[in-house]
Amino acid sequence: MTSTFVAIIDFVGTFAFAISGALVAVRHRLDLFGVLVLAFAAATAGGIIRDVLLGATPPVSVLDWRYLAVSSTAGLLTFYRHEQVERMRNPVQLSDAVGLSLFAVLGADKALDAGLGPTGAIMLGILSGVGGGIVRDVLVAQVPSVLQRELYAIAAFVGATVVVAGDALDLPPTPVTVGGATACFVIRWLAIRRGWRLPVSRGGGPA
Amino acid sequence: MTSTFVAIIDFVGTFAFAISGALVAVRHRLDLFGVLVLAFAAATAGGIIRDVLLGATPPVSVLDWRYLAVSSTAGLLTFYRHEQVERMRNPVQLSDAVGLSLFAVLGADKALDAGLGPTGAIMLGILSGVGGGIVRDVLVAQVPSVLQRELYAIAAFVGATVVVAGDALDLPPTPVTVGGATACFVIRWLAIRRGWRLPVSRGGGPA
Amino acid sequence: MTSTFVAIIDFVGTFAFAISGALVAVRHRLDLFGVLVLAFAAATAGGIIRDVLLGATPPVSVLDWRYLAVSSTAGLLTFYRHEQVERMRNPVQLSDAVGLSLFAVLGADKALDAGLGPTGAIMLGILSGVGGGIVRDVLVAQVPSVLQRELYAIAAFVGATVVVAGDALDLPPTPVTVGGATACFVIRWLAIRRGWRLPVSRGGGPA
Repeated sequence: MTSTFVAIIDFVGTFAFAISGALVAVRHRLDLFGVLVLAFAAATAGGIIRDVLLGATPPVSVLDWRYLAVSSTAGLLTFYRHEQVERMRNPVQLSDAVGLSLFAVLGADKALDAGLGPTGAIMLGILSGVGGGIVRDVLVAQVPSVLQRELYAIAAFVGATVVVAGDALDLPPTPVTVGGATACFVIRWLAIRRGWRLPVSRGGGPA
Repeated sequence: MTSTFVAIIDFVGTFAFAISGALVAVRHRLDLFGVLVLAFAAATAGGIIRDVLLGATPPVSVLDWRYLAVSSTAGLLTFYRHEQVERMRNPVQLSDAVGLSLFAVLGADKALDAGLGPTGAIMLGILSGVGGGIVRDVLVAQVPSVLQRELYAIAAFVGATVVVAGDALDLPPTPVTVGGATACFVIRWLAIRRGWRLPVSRGGGPA
Repeated sequence: MTSTFVAIIDFVGTFAFAISGALVAVRHRLDLFGVLVLAFAAATAGGIIRDVLLGATPPVSVLDWRYLAVSSTAGLLTFYRHEQVERMRNPVQLSDAVGLSLFAVLGADKALDAGLGPTGAIMLGILSGVGGGIVRDVLVAQVPSVLQRELYAIAAFVGATVVVAGDALDLPPTPVTVGGATACFVIRWLAIRRGWRLPVSRGGGPA
């Protein structure tokens, strides 16, 4: 893929995740600073943790002011137009699914480039996709929803696995990346539509 | 500034933040180890995260035993003289404001030295000032107060911005650093005295 | 010690900590993915944070797929055989104490190898032992039990201190490591059996 194309989808994913962070922040009555922090954290924490684990510091989202600009735009929009953003539930879920798909495949790609093996690359792909949501929820003292709700991480797992398998089979990277992101997106979208969930152990007592 | 002067204000800030961490730990009935951990975390986590993001590892507060010594002194004092420390609420808030001011300007300085641009330096300045308080609150499963209460991060933002602006204008560093810290301190202190707050989105429902 | 022996005890500790993570996840009704994440996090987060602080990236548990395999085995076992695992409370506490002992001494060893001084090596030894449990509890929005309950960190402190003292006195590393791990294990085991606890400050109000 051209790097311009990657940059564009990266910012789309950043915006989508930032909206999810800002929505959580507003619901928990954080102040304006808190909303901007959660927007930025939800959008970038997965990639930042990935970069720190790879030793690729400073992380690109700290170096490049545009990530903060994009996430802050999403944060301000959510802060001052909260009702409208809440009402757009479908578009928000849609863009969140797009963000997940993009971050999972780009994260796996980046880990492979850094020399990680298949397991590490899949793990960091998943982490890139779900890390922001985990940090977002920890910051409002909630159990991360990605550890509980409908298929979310599994979608990222499939997307990252497609990228790693394509790399192992020496397939051309662009269609593989597009295929991985598409697979991730379709699984995530079907999971939302049909309420697909992972099992919960019967040992845990009543909900 | 001479490095001795920087070191002294660094330890003053460390002590102040450690008191805040130990107070939170005692209120949540943590044991002695928990109190020492929260004292150390509140005092050093902002700087540690900044150093990890800059790739400046191991962080200085892990290398230099005096940070642990200072934070543990504050922790033991709070543990065994809790009532007296609680009663000194004014001095504690005062030294916390001093710590915030010092860490914000030193953090921005350090990020500029590491080659970051203005946005990154301001972000890491803020993070240096507020990161310890965020980790402290996450460790007792509370929403970080810095995301909710009176102007706190904004003060750090102003302090860090003064440093970054002074650097961009090639002004002499010592007066710029002192000016940034002073601006941060004054804003923080007035915010406490007058109850200044950032707005909360009206969309969040009842408190 | 031979590196094979170190590898074996490392995986034993990984398995033990992963069981503790999976048990917490099942009790909080996380889904299967959440159980696997908490198993992996409880087993590896202490070592990962240590490696990040030392600049030793990527951390070995991300590079080597066997850590994920071991922690996932523990996670699946706990997920599908939850009652049996809960009933084995004694074996679980036993293996957790083994894991704590091994990670504390190996962590201090690794920090010394990386050139840290005594204080830093002891801190990173403790962090290697207790970091996974802290991350595990933060991920389910609970105050980390290591900050509250019976002597846990103190045992790690003693184990790590034995290693650091042995190094300072130039004693042969293998018996020192075995001695440190044994001391840590005995303290932790006695603390469980006899309910030894650290004091809580009387200033904290009623429990």
